[in-house]
Parts: sequence; structure tokens; C-alpha cells
Amino acid sequence: MLGHGAKDHPTMKDVPIGLAAKGTRKEFDSMGTVEVPADTYYGAQTARSLVHFSIGDDRMPKAVYHAYGIVKKACALVNQAEGRLPAWKADPIVRAADEAVAGKLDDHFPLYVWQTGSGTQSNMNVNEVLSNRAIQLLGGELGTQEPVGPNDDVNLGQSSNDTFPTAMHIAAVEEVDARLLPQLDALAKAIEVKAADWMHVVKIGRTHLEDATPLTVGQEWSGYAAQVRACMEAIADSRRGLYELAIGGTAVGTGLNAPKGFSVKVAAKIAELTGKPFVTAPNKFMAQGSLDAMVRAHAALAGLAVALMKIANDMRWLASGPRCGLGELKLPQNEPGSSIMPGKVNPTQCEAIVMIAIQVLGDNSGVQFAGSQGNFELNAMRPIIINNFLHSARILGDGCEKFRTFSVEGTQLDEKRIAGYVENSLMLVTALSPVIGYQKAAHISEAADAEGATLREAALKSGYVDEATFDRVMDPKSMVGEGVGGA
Amino acid sequence: MLGHGAKDHPTMKDVPIGLAAKGTRKEFDSMGTVEVPADTYYGAQTARSLVHFSIGDDRMPKAVYHAYGIVKKACALVNQAEGRLPAWKADPIVRAADEAVAGKLDDHFPLYVWQTGSGTQSNMNVNEVLSNRAIQLLGGELGTQEPVGPNDDVNLGQSSNDTFPTAMHIAAVEEVDARLLPQLDALAKAIEVKAADWMHVVKIGRTHLEDATPLTVGQEWSGYAAQVRACMEAIADSRRGLYELAIGGTAVGTGLNAPKGFSVKVAAKIAELTGKPFVTAPNKFMAQGSLDAMVRAHAALAGLAVALMKIANDMRWLASGPRCGLGELKLPQNEPGSSIMPGKVNPTQCEAIVMIAIQVLGDNSGVQFAGSQGNFELNAMRPIIINNFLHSARILGDGCEKFRTFSVEGTQLDEKRIAGYVENSLMLVTALSPVIGYQKAAHISEAADAEGATLREAALKSGYVDEATFDRVMDPKSMVGEGVGGA
Amino acid sequence: MLGHGAKDHPTMKDVPIGLAAKGTRKEFDSMGTVEVPADTYYGAQTARSLVHFSIGDDRMPKAVYHAYGIVKKACALVNQAEGRLPAWKADPIVRAADEAVAGKLDDHFPLYVWQTGSGTQSNMNVNEVLSNRAIQLLGGELGTQEPVGPNDDVNLGQSSNDTFPTAMHIAAVEEVDARLLPQLDALAKAIEVKAADWMHVVKIGRTHLEDATPLTVGQEWSGYAAQVRACMEAIADSRRGLYELAIGGTAVGTGLNAPKGFSVKVAAKIAELTGKPFVTAPNKFMAQGSLDAMVRAHAALAGLAVALMKIANDMRWLASGPRCGLGELKLPQNEPGSSIMPGKVNPTQCEAIVMIAIQVLGDNSGVQFAGSQGNFELNAMRPIIINNFLHSARILGDGCEKFRTFSVEGTQLDEKRIAGYVENSLMLVTALSPVIGYQKAAHISEAADAEGATLREAALKSGYVDEATFDRVMDPKSMVGEGVGGA
Amino acid sequence: MLGHGAKDHPTMKDVPIGLAAKGTRKEFDSMGTVEVPADTYYGAQTARSLVHFSIGDDRMPKAVYHAYGIVKKACALVNQAEGRLPAWKADPIVRAADEAVAGKLDDHFPLYVWQTGSGTQSNMNVNEVLSNRAIQLLGGELGTQEPVGPNDDVNLGQSSNDTFPTAMHIAAVEEVDARLLPQLDALAKAIEVKAADWMHVVKIGRTHLEDATPLTVGQEWSGYAAQVRACMEAIADSRRGLYELAIGGTAVGTGLNAPKGFSVKVAAKIAELTGKPFVTAPNKFMAQGSLDAMVRAHAALAGLAVALMKIANDMRWLASGPRCGLGELKLPQNEPGSSIMPGKVNPTQCEAIVMIAIQVLGDNSGVQFAGSQGNFELNAMRPIIINNFLHSARILGDGCEKFRTFSVEGTQLDEKRIAGYVENSLMLVTALSPVIGYQKAAHISEAADAEGATLREAALKSGYVDEATFDRVMDPKSMVGEGVGGA
Repeated sequence: MLGHGAKDHPTMKDVPIGLAAKGTRKEFDSMGTVEVPADTYYGAQTARSLVHFSIGDDRMPKAVYHAYGIVKKACALVNQAEGRLPAWKADPIVRAADEAVAGKLDDHFPLYVWQTGSGTQSNMNVNEVLSNRAIQLLGGELGTQEPVGPNDDVNLGQSSNDTFPTAMHIAAVEEVDARLLPQLDALAKAIEVKAADWMHVVKIGRTHLEDATPLTVGQEWSGYAAQVRACMEAIADSRRGLYELAIGGTAVGTGLNAPKGFSVKVAAKIAELTGKPFVTAPNKFMAQGSLDAMVRAHAALAGLAVALMKIANDMRWLASGPRCGLGELKLPQNEPGSSIMPGKVNPTQCEAIVMIAIQVLGDNSGVQFAGSQGNFELNAMRPIIINNFLHSARILGDGCEKFRTFSVEGTQLDEKRIAGYVENSLMLVTALSPVIGYQKAAHISEAADAEGATLREAALKSGYVDEATFDRVMDPKSMVGEGVGGA
Repeated sequence: MLGHGAKDHPTMKDVPIGLAAKGTRKEFDSMGTVEVPADTYYGAQTARSLVHFSIGDDRMPKAVYHAYGIVKKACALVNQAEGRLPAWKADPIVRAADEAVAGKLDDHFPLYVWQTGSGTQSNMNVNEVLSNRAIQLLGGELGTQEPVGPNDDVNLGQSSNDTFPTAMHIAAVEEVDARLLPQLDALAKAIEVKAADWMHVVKIGRTHLEDATPLTVGQEWSGYAAQVRACMEAIADSRRGLYELAIGGTAVGTGLNAPKGFSVKVAAKIAELTGKPFVTAPNKFMAQGSLDAMVRAHAALAGLAVALMKIANDMRWLASGPRCGLGELKLPQNEPGSSIMPGKVNPTQCEAIVMIAIQVLGDNSGVQFAGSQGNFELNAMRPIIINNFLHSARILGDGCEKFRTFSVEGTQLDEKRIAGYVENSLMLVTALSPVIGYQKAAHISEAADAEGATLREAALKSGYVDEATFDRVMDPKSMVGEGVGGA
Repeated sequence: MLGHGAKDHPTMKDVPIGLAAKGTRKEFDSMGTVEVPADTYYGAQTARSLVHFSIGDDRMPKAVYHAYGIVKKACALVNQAEGRLPAWKADPIVRAADEAVAGKLDDHFPLYVWQTGSGTQSNMNVNEVLSNRAIQLLGGELGTQEPVGPNDDVNLGQSSNDTFPTAMHIAAVEEVDARLLPQLDALAKAIEVKAADWMHVVKIGRTHLEDATPLTVGQEWSGYAAQVRACMEAIADSRRGLYELAIGGTAVGTGLNAPKGFSVKVAAKIAELTGKPFVTAPNKFMAQGSLDAMVRAHAALAGLAVALMKIANDMRWLASGPRCGLGELKLPQNEPGSSIMPGKVNPTQCEAIVMIAIQVLGDNSGVQFAGSQGNFELNAMRPIIINNFLHSARILGDGCEKFRTFSVEGTQLDEKRIAGYVENSLMLVTALSPVIGYQKAAHISEAADAEGATLREAALKSGYVDEATFDRVMDPKSMVGEGVGGA
Repeated sequence: MLGHGAKDHPTMKDVPIGLAAKGTRKEFDSMGTVEVPADTYYGAQTARSLVHFSIGDDRMPKAVYHAYGIVKKACALVNQAEGRLPAWKADPIVRAADEAVAGKLDDHFPLYVWQTGSGTQSNMNVNEVLSNRAIQLLGGELGTQEPVGPNDDVNLGQSSNDTFPTAMHIAAVEEVDARLLPQLDALAKAIEVKAADWMHVVKIGRTHLEDATPLTVGQEWSGYAAQVRACMEAIADSRRGLYELAIGGTAVGTGLNAPKGFSVKVAAKIAELTGKPFVTAPNKFMAQGSLDAMVRAHAALAGLAVALMKIANDMRWLASGPRCGLGELKLPQNEPGSSIMPGKVNPTQCEAIVMIAIQVLGDNSGVQFAGSQGNFELNAMRPIIINNFLHSARILGDGCEKFRTFSVEGTQLDEKRIAGYVENSLMLVTALSPVIGYQKAAHISEAADAEGATLREAALKSGYVDEATFDRVMDPKSMVGEGVGGA
């Protein structure tokens, strides 16, 4: 393997992606020979996995393979720079890896989620595809593992045990950075615009679902925005653990068969290729024996789910009606809501967000469970964890986009109804407490409730307060304080 | 709508499925007109949903639409029999419904899981597709809703609120009956064969992971089989709730716009069409306001997950090694296990089962959460629940098939190692307890442990027991009892 | 141990419970001697456990010990009947066991939940306490294990591995039968009374939180009752697995050291003592290697939690207000609701039920997780499972009692507001669909919504329907159907 | 209330805690008069809650009341400083609050967890107790609410809605700081000591439970330590959200009835009293409408649970045996392990940790669920969340202490067995891959496995490698790399 001379080696040609052959091709691994479809780049181990693990229709997310492309490229470049891999081999591997990163080889990565817990089969799928693609680029014969072998060249200095979690971390960060955080920022901004617009619209507060003292619509929405912003911060922070990469640990964390310094150099190369602050994990036995950083990152997604459910629930309750509900908000009317009730419209975006939130919370239970089930030098629950992470991040990201676009941004107020509630509420009586004491104030509101009277009527009738005082104190606008920080 | 005369109506022609038109077609609903791809049968509401809910890549399972085909067919037949729908309309609806049942219209059901919580959009998708397909069969113009309308004809006497849970129940029962229960039976049988084969192979028991008294390999495996059988019974029982159908409740459970007797007749028709004991739900307000029966059915799947994880964990631990583990079992060697460690083979089928079990348990949390979030006359968490149920049942069914085929059936014993453990174990001393008492027996085993001696050596040295008694009592074969019911 | 003659043995005296000694007493086990408080009956192993496991303040539920009393009594009686235990020993063991059953020895069972996963320490706690109590009754010296030993006499023919799950099953069934099911029946009845009282009060339905077609308050509540009844059935059914007892399996399920027939006879004795249909578990390897029956029983509790949350949420939303909410229901006013808002009253019973439901669902996740973690001949997660089961059943039982007494039974209607909603709702338009078609009906309701008009105004203005037809069709009373089974 | 003159007021006397009265005393609230036990300080609302919510035996943790003491003290001091509360009233309130902080009034805080979701009843319990205790100190008559009232004085400028979450945050931080983090540090240190001691003991690695390449015992344990350290960091970080206090938001977040600046000043006072960096929450609507910071903090505990389960599982598996398991570790023998198997010892500390971890993960599901169920200006799921948080933190803290003391610190190696595994393992062949290529290396290990040969025998027989090369490459010590960072 090593020691290939720089002379008399094949040269890379610019062959487009694709295999014209029909029927099957022989591929081999240490267990023997397997027939694979001739138009695929993958080899024996991928073929075996497809037979043994065709379970449901859950495929390993393509994002894992895109991330794997970065890993393989970085390793090839470092191996080349250190003279372990000649340039004529490294070049086609790098080119194939770039194609994988760009999604151009996606069709050749067909494996299922429910496979070996280390992700070895997906790593070998990548090794086989890049090896065969490199062989093609070098004019060789597919299935020979020559002159570029899946194990000895593409996987050089690597193991599934260190590359798969490395690819998991890269894929997770990419999804969070490229979709989730931008969508959360857009959602927070949209809510903040609403909060600003409605900062002075006084409404009745509700606690325990029961009428409470007033606040403004803007204050209420400022709370939603603050929730989203805090979730963003937690998600961003959770990348810290993800930035630490296992690569360089090889089989069990000791780095056997990888040269000294490999971990640091490959992590630096990955940082360079991605523009993100990836570093080598300081302890490789933790990095491969646990998936704790992934568990923590998913918990941050779960935190977002918790917040989104509250926001979406508030919106759909405040918009309930149109005539027999709370009716403070008017959500955009996107679709007919019923196949039988004409003219019905429902808060469907809110419902979708609520369901997404529940799914993410259920998946979080699964991720934590799986994270706890590592043994010794490996947590063999990787596929379920990366699949759930990417799924959760994706449906949260997409869901927030739809929710913002089709619900938040178009939401309007029914200011008349909002004002009516403030006028009727008995809880304005709270402002009388400092003047007449809690117990007397309570008797006024209880009397009003019992008699169906207004607070004013009951207050004056009680004799506890005179008209002038009542009118001075009972101003809802003066009850909402200033800003969002409370008293 | 009603009152179409039997005369002068269009006649159904035998038009194959498919639309040759290109570009787009206008479709309308109560909110207005929408352009849809001309080669699809779906209409305005499906098109709206595709815009508003393209979230991730989770599509409503096709099984829901196959089940919906049965619902629509049954309703059309009952409506026809009662004169509410003329035969010339019912016939093409029934034909289109049959096509849906057979999966031939799957491409026209593209909606996402994350949509309205009632499933209305999927119901309307079905209504639109069957309506347009019926129009095509009758020679009409797609997009006109004439002479067969999605709401007034295909959905006649129905609501999403009663049809969607009806389709959920049918789809769930079908998946359980067609795949899961047969695969569980096959798995149980395969385990039972092993248990019978190995009923007299004495092995060491282990409790708390620590050496215990002996049992036979067959006894151990009989426990696995009993677990699977008990789960099958629970899953089968859980269909009881699923057999009760909401159809006939329409919008809120009162049956408004459906004729008296509709619920009973449609359920009977569905029972006839499926050959399964479906009946009308005795209380429609529960049937539509809750999804409790689905929650219970998923809990039965979770019970299976719990059992499978124990079995798969036992198998992989007992097969651990080959040289530095327990090594009692030899699992089939299906694939190379490592990209870096040559010759390594791993218990991958067990790992897949463990991950599947964890996923199902996480999904169970989600299903219970969603089940609790109903309000008033509707639980608007239907898509997440049916998606999780069908997913769980599917990966359990497929997973058990692979597990059985590629792991259980080919498992063999390392009888030499098994016998060696029995010979060495100190816990055979338990059989001495009735003879010399617990405390003295304890001192013998503690001495053997401390001195690295055999139990025999330590026992005779202790003076608590003579050689003849020791040899009579210390027979592992006599310690395993008879059968599987204990003493 | 065995072979004690019937003569010259001590005689049981009627010594009351209690130990007057002060300071400490020496107790021993196979590991040596331990000082224990002189006023307790427990021995060395209990004392060790108290040192090693003082974690938080979660104590093994007393109900486990009460059930253990039944197990020990049944074993002693069977052992006596078969001549393995002389009457003079069996009698004081039985008496002590009866005292344990009655809760009179509770103070002597102080162990924590977080202990050995088999429950051995609790079994030994029982063995030690009954042994010492029997010694006391026979006039012997505590701490000598003579003439009644904890292992050789009280535990005769038993193991923690079979007795602990037996006690778990008994304790679980007792809690369900004595508290939970009766409370559920009382709750269902209370709801059914309300449903009957309000069967003809027409109200507006709500789906997706939005106005829908009418139903009656009684119909709505009939759904709640049906949910509770279905949960009761599921809980009752889940006892089937609990009725199967592990006793007779001893250490690993083979029944070593127990005489043939012991399992059947002790189960029969337990059935006799409890009046419940306990039987021996047909497969002891499942009965000890798994806790699947407990997992399934807890899942039935989780199903109840799901249902209760829906009911309690409906009630508090329907009672929301008093002036700015839905306000259809008036819940009993039990306590002042706020420390700052005078006169505020909140739906606190509903909130308690919701929190209880969430706790039970979280605990269900834990129970399932624990249930999956068995290995080989033992599931060593017993304490967490029985603790969660008894806790869940208890707070559900008590919670339902309070909820019924302080919320359901005193709930009243605001019929005026209920009627007002029906009058205003636009969804009555649904009844026009069969007459004028869905699309025209939709346009009427959309127009009414846009113009703030009544349905009548909009309908007549539309020209789609004449006054007579409108008035005939638009009768809410005629829209609610009959009974609870839908159309 | 306000305006009490500084003159002619009662003076505080040094009355010890305690009420000698017998029978009952009349207390009142806005709903009327209630009899309470004469020897308690609590008032009408506590008494009502005890009747309405005696559910199970879950009491609001005392830590909540200790934290509440700090809140009440801080508010009284700020109110006094600003002239809203005269010193003669503030002084006894502060003294009573100090007594609450010190746990001296614990018996007077008997309420259940399952109560109003806002914690109002616990806030009123505190208000009543401090008010009556202050009245006692001032020589007044209990039950009169004079001269110190529960609402108007003790609760001055406060609401349950802002004080309860403030007390939650304080209690949570105190538990984490006082017990959990120190115990985790001690555990990490104990593991680090072991890792250092064993850094050069070469052992076989295991991935997928199967033999892998070697590492050292110290490297393996360094991974455990790194996991614990990372969890500590995450838990410490999660305090950031907890440091933000709701106080000053009063009823709905606007700060009604609290003076401007109250929030900032009280938070500063709490920081001063506790010595911790508490600040006012920047957005009070988030602080009261959500419990997101608590949810995030509990997620950090769940992350710890995940890590601990892995560590404890590794330890008990590596210690399995003594003769029929892996047997690399020897855990301390703390108690007899079996009531029937003499001399058996089990990894009970590991089992306790595993059960604790599972409980915490189940509780985490509950906390997230509860966190998502807020509505409008209040998340009324506070009691369940603080109860679960304090419970989780406590059992983790205590559990880690026991685990460290009784398991980790006393663990020893069976170096002979460890060396034997290394000698026998086939996976050392991995080191040959760079020399002869992956496929040839695989054939060597497969041959050794099939023939029961040593790797050396199979390698030399294969002809792929000569003796000198084999002996040079096949040195386990050279395969473990250096340190813990991999290659």
C-alpha cells in the first residue's frame, strides 16, 4: 500500500459521474464476493447491508454522507501532505469526496438507518463509493479495489468509530447553522416586529386561563420573542460540544494505525474546509464511547420545542372563535378548514408546530435513551441519534419558516374585542389593593361577579372607595407598567 | 346535488389511470381558484397544503390513503343503497376508491404529515382525487367538480372528523394483521425451535450480571418466546379499541348531515370489505374527541419494544467475544464489522433491534403526549399519531423479520464454553443450603472465591459436608428442575 | 435446620410488638457482624443497606411490605403443610407476617428505593424482621437467628428473585383494586350524572378550538365518561399479567431448593388469602427475567393519564373567564386563587389533574426504559418499577377523588352564555349544505364573517335560500342528533 | 395599610418558635373563616389546600420554602428601605423569614405538590406563617392578620406569579451548588485518581461488545472522568438562566402594585443574601409565562443521567463474574447479594445509579411536557417542575456520593485476567493492516478464529508476514498510543 512510487501510476481523467454498465458487477470484501448493480458505485458491504437491513423506509440522511465527504477529503489531504497517500491517489479521492459533499453521489448511498450501531456500513458505503469513483477517474476497473482501496486508501488512518461521530457532528452543525438558526432568527424578528407594533395595545392578562390584570399585546409577544432568542442561544451554545471531533481516535480511541498528530491536523483541515471552529476532541475515549455532545445538542432542540408549543398554543387560543372563542387575534386564513363545515378556518400552522414540538420531545426521549446505552469503547446507537437529530432540526427549521410566513407575519388584532375584555374584567380591582387592602378589594370583585355588575358599580356600592379615587386608580393604561422588565 | 335524475346522466367508461395533460389546470375551493399540475388528480386544497406545509420530508403514510379508499367506498355504497347517491355517481367513486385501496393512486397523495391536526387536508386530497378520477371516468372535465363533487358527493354524509380516525383505525389494524403479528409469530416460533433444541443444555444462570445457579439454554430461550407471545396477545387485544369506528359522527359526533343509521351501516360495510370485525363506536364524542384507542394500541407496540430489547441484549451479550467476552452463543456472521479491524464481526441485527426498540419507546412518549392534547370535540393531533403508529409497527415488523432471519435462526451454541462456566461457577453451592444451611454454604463459596479454589475443594476443606454428600448434591443437571414453570 | 423434632421446642407466647431495649444489638450475616438499633427488628443486611443507600428520601413503599407479608405467610403455610417447616416455627412466622400485612411493622422497613435492583435488601429486611419477631414470640434472643432464621426458615424455598416480583404483583393489584378502580368508577358515575342532567342543553361544538356545529353539553360529557370507562377496562384487563406470580422460580426460574409443586401451591394460597385470582406464572424465566406484565400495567395507567388530561383541560377551558374566557362552565370556587389579585378563583383541581397526568406519563417512560434493561435471568430494575407503579396509581386514585369531589360534582352551567354562543355561531350553516351544496353554504358563512352579520342575514341576502327553508333547517336542536352514537 | 405611623406601634419581642395553644383557631381569608390547628402558624388558605389536595404523599419540597424565606426577606428589606413597610413590621417579617430559611418553620409548610399550578397556595402558606409568626413576635393575636397581614404586608409588592418562580430558581441553584456539583467534582476526582493509577495497564478494548484493539484501563477511565466533567460544565452553565429572577413582575409581568425599580433591587438583595449572581430577568413575560430556564436546567441533569448510566453499566459489566463474566474489575463487596445463593455479591451501587438515571430521564420527559403547557401570562405547571428538579438533583447528588464511596473508590483490577484477554484477542491483527493490507489481515484473524489458533500461529501460517515483523508489530503496549487524545 505504502511505498507506491510516484512514477508509472495512472493519471486522473475528467470522467463525469455515472456508470453505463448494466446488470451486475462483482465486488468483494473480506467475507467474499457479492454481485452489485452495475450502475452503482457501491461495493460488497453496502450490498450486504441492503439485504440484511431493509427495515421500513428510513434511510440514513444524505446530510451524513455530505459531511462524510468533508471527513474523507480532509483525511486524504492530510495523508497526502504527510506522504502516506500519493497525490495521484489523493486527487481522485478528493474529487470524489467533493462530489459527495455536493450531493452528486446521493443515489449511491442507499443504506437504512437501522443498521450496525457504529455506522460502519455507512462508512464503508462511502469508502466503497469514493474508491470506485476514484478507480473510475483513474481509468481502473470497478470492483478490483485497485489502485484505490476502500479500506487501505480511502479509510487510511481512520475507523468508522472515529469518522462516523465526526461526520455526525459536522452534519449536525451544518443543519443548525444553515437552516435552523437563520429560521429562528427570522421568526424572532417577525415576532419582535409584532411586539413593537402592538406595544401600546392594552389587553387583559390571563393566568390559569382566568382573567387577570392587564398588559399590552406587545408585552405578551415580547415574551414569545424572548423565548425564541433564549432557545437560539442555547442551541448555538450546544455546538460547543459538537465542534469537538473524534477523528484520530480510530478503533478504540488510542489512534492505532493513525500517525501522531493526525487528530489535530484533520480537525484543523475540517475547520478550514467548513469555516467552522472544529477542533480535535481532547478525550477520544469519551468522544467514541459516548455521544454525550449529541445528546446535549438534541436537548437544546427539545428546549425549543417546549417554547414553540407555548407560543403556538397561545396564538391558536387567542385566535379561537370566530364568535365563540377568545377572538383577540385574527390569523391568516390559508385554507378551508373543514370538509363538512362550510367557511370554517382553522389555526393549522399552530397545529403543525404543536405536533412538530411533540415529535421532537418524543425523539428527545429516544436520543437520551440511546445516549445512555453505550458500552466500553463505543456507543453503538449512532444511527438512531443522528437520524433523530437531523430530523428534529429539519422539521423545526422548516416548521418555523412556515409558521412565520403563513401565520405569525399575517396575524392581526381584533382591537375592539381586546378593548371589550379590558373593560369588563374584574381583575382591574387589583390596583385598588394598595389603597384599600386586599380583603376589601376581594369583596368588591366578588360582589361584582355575583351580581353581574361592573367593577365600578360594585366598588362605589361597597363604600370602600370614592368615585374620584376609583377613576384615578382604575386606568388600565397605567396598570401595564413600562417596557418588558416588570416593576 | 341530491335529486339528480337517473336519466340523462353520463356513463362510466373504462379509462385507465393517468392524465396526459401538461402544464397546469385550474381547481377551485371555497376560497378561490388555484393552479395545480395538470397531470395530477388532486385539487385546490391539496395544492394549498403543499405550499403551506412543505416541512421536512415526512409524508402522510400511503397506508392511510389505502384505508381511506375503503372508507370512501363503504360510504358510497351505503349512500347509493339508500338512494342518496345515484348509481352512476357511486360506481365511478367506488372504482376510484378501489384504485386508491390498491395503491394505484399513491402518486396523487403527496401531502405532508405536519399539516392540519384533523387530517382534513388528507381527506380533501382523497375527496379531490376520487372526484376528479370519477369525473374522468364519466367523461367530464377535471376541476369543475361536476358531475361528482369532492364535498357533496365523495364526502357525502362525512367529515374529516369522523373519516380520518376511521381510516387511522383501519390502517393500523391492517398493518398489525398483515405484517406485525405474522412476523412476531414467526419470530416466536423460531425462538421456540431453539428452546426445544437446547432444552437440555445446562448453562450457568446469571443475575445482576453475576454468576448464579444453573438453568438450561432452552429454559432461557423459552422465556424469550413467552415474552414475544405475551406481547402478541397484548397487541392483538389492543385491536379491540381500533375495531370501533368514528364514521357516522360527522363534524362533532352528532352525525349532522348523515342519515340515521349511517354509522352502523358504514361500519358493517367496512367489516364486510375488510373481513375484520369493525363496528361503530358506541360513543362518537369519545371517538372524535380523543384518540385513546390509538394511544392504547401504540402502548402495546411499546410493550413489544421493551421485550425485544431484553432479548436482543441478552443475545449480543451472550455472543460477546469471540475471545474476551461471554461467548456462549455464536451469531451468524453476516458482514465484516469494522473498517479498520480486520476479521471483526458484530451483533448488528441485535443492535438494529435495540435501536428500533428505543425509537418505538420515544415515539410512544410522543403518541401519549399527543393523545392528551385533544380539545372539546376533536383531538387535532391525528397525523402525528397515525404516522408514529404505522412507523413503529412497520419497523418492528420488518426488524423482527430481519432479526429472525439473519440472527435468531442461525444462532449456534459454543457448548464447550457453556459447560466450562457451569463447572467453574461457585453458585452451585446454593444446592448445599438445604443440607448445611445458608450461612455455612456462604462461607464455602467465599472461601473458594478468596482462594481461587473449586467449590469441591473449598467444601471438603470446610468440613461442613462430606465427599459423598457433596457429589450427590452438586449435580448441575439436577439443579435445573423440569420444564419452564419452576418448582 | 431441618429435622427439628416436634418435641422440646419453644412455644409461642403472645408478646406485643415492640422492643424495649436501648442502644444497639449485634446482628450477623454471612459477611460478619453489624450493630443495629436495639429497638428495631431488622438485622445486619438492612443495616448495611441503610448505610450504602441513603439516597434522597425515597423509601420502598410500605405496600410492598404488606404484600410481602402475604407472600411469607403463604410460603410458611405451604412449607408447614408439607412438613418442611414445623408448626411451632411456622406459627410465629405467620403471626409476624400477619402483623406485616396489617402495617404494624412498617417502622421496621426503612429501606430506600435506590438499592439493589432485585429487591433483595427489602426481601432480607422482611426475612430479618419476621425472623426476629418470631424469635421474640418464641422467647428467643434477637440477633441469634435461632430458632427461626431469616434465610433458612422465613425465606425457605424462596429467593428475592421470585418473591419480590410476587410481592410487586400483589401490591400493584391491591392498589388498583382498593383505590384506583373504585375512584374511577365514582368519577365515571359523577360524570354520567352530569351528562344525563345536561343531555338536552344545546351548546356550540368546537373543533381545532374553532366554532363548529352544535351538540349538547350532555353529549360532550358522555364522551368524558366513555373515556374513563374505557380506561377502567384497560386497567382491569392489565391485571391479567399481574395475576401470574413468579414464586416457585427461586434463584433463576428453575425452582432450585423449592419442592416440586411449590409454585402452584403458594400461588393458590396467595389467591386464597387475598381473594384474588392469582396463579403461578406459566414461564418462570419470563416472570423473573422480565417485568413485562408490570410495564403493561403501567401503560394502562398512562392511558388513563392521557384521558384525564383531556377531560381536565376541557373543563378548565370551558370554565375560563369569568368575563374574558369561554365561560360555559362554572366550577366550584374552593380557594382564593391569587395572593395579589383579589377575588380571583382558578381551576386548581384541573391543574392538579393535569400535573398528575404529566407525572404519570413521565414515569411511564421511566418504567418502559427500566423494563427493557433486564439481563439474562433477572430484570434488576424492580424497585424503580414498583415505586413508580404504586406512585402513579396512588396519585391517580387520590387525584380523581379530589377532582370529582371538589370540581366535577359541583360544576354548573352558565346556560345563558351557552345559548348565546349557539345563536351567534356561523357553523350552523353546515345544515344548509345538503340543501344548497357545500360551496354556496361556505360563501354564506364567509359573508357573515366578513360583514359581522348573522347567518340568517347573510343567508337571505345571498339568495341561495329562502326564509322558510332557512328557518326550518336552522334549528340547533335538530342538529344534535339523538343519543351518543352519531348518525 | 400604608400610612401606619412610626409611633404607637407594637415592639418585637424575642419569642421562641412554637404555639402552646391546643384545639383549633379561627383564620380567615377573602372567602371566609376556617378552623386551623391551634399549634400551627398557617392560616385559612393553607388549611383549605390541605383539604382539597391531599393527594398521595408528595409534599412541596422544603427547599422551596427555604428559598421562599430569602425572597420574603429580600422584599421586606427593600420595602422597608423604600418606606413602604415600617421597620417595626419589616423586622419581625425578616426574623420569621430567617427562621424559614433555616428550616425552623418546616413543620408549618405541609402542602402537597399536586395543588394549584402557580404555587399560590405555597406562597400563601409562607405569607400566612410569616405573618402569624410576626404577629406573635409583636405580641398580637394570631388569625387577626393584624398588625402584619399575609397579603398586604408579607406579600407586599409581590404575587405568587413572580415569587414562586423566583423561589424555584433559588432552590434549584442552591441544590446544585451545595450538593450536586461538589459530589460530581468528588466523583470526577475519584475516577481521575483511578485513571492515573491504571494509565499503563494495557487491556483489550471492546466495541459492539466484541473484542477490539487494546487500550489502557486508565484511558478507559479517563473517558468516564471526561464525561462527568463535561456534565458538570453543562450543569454549571445551565444556572445562567436560573440566575434570572421573575420577582418584580407581580401578577402578569407588568409589575402592577410594585414600585418602579423593585425588580432590580430585590434581585440585587437576593444576590447579596445568597452570595450568588442573581439578577432580574430582562423579560418578565417570558419569566412568568414560561419555565424554559428550569426546563433547560433539568435537561442538564438528564445529560448527567445519560453519562452516569454508561459509566455504571461499564463498571458492572467489567466486574461481571466472578467466574463466568468479564471479570476485569473487582468492585467492593458491600453486602450479601442473595437471599438464596450463598456468597453471591452484586454490583448494587451500579444498579442504584442506573435506576436513578432512568428516573431522572423519565422525569425529564415530564418536565419538558409540563414546560410546554404554559398559557398566556402563566405556566401553571410549576409544582411538578420544581419537585422533579429538586428530586432529580438530589438523587443524583446522593447517588453519586454513594457510588463513589462504596463502589468507585474501592474498585480494583484483576490484572491477570486483563492480561489474559489481551494475549488472546485476535484484534491485535489490526496493527498488521498498514503492513500487509486490510484484506490479508482479515484472512489471518478469520483463520485464527476458525481454527482456534493464536494470532501468531495463524499469521505465520498465512505466509503474509514473517516472524520478525510479526513480533515487532504485535506489541500491545505500542498499540495504545500516548495520553487520551488519540493519534
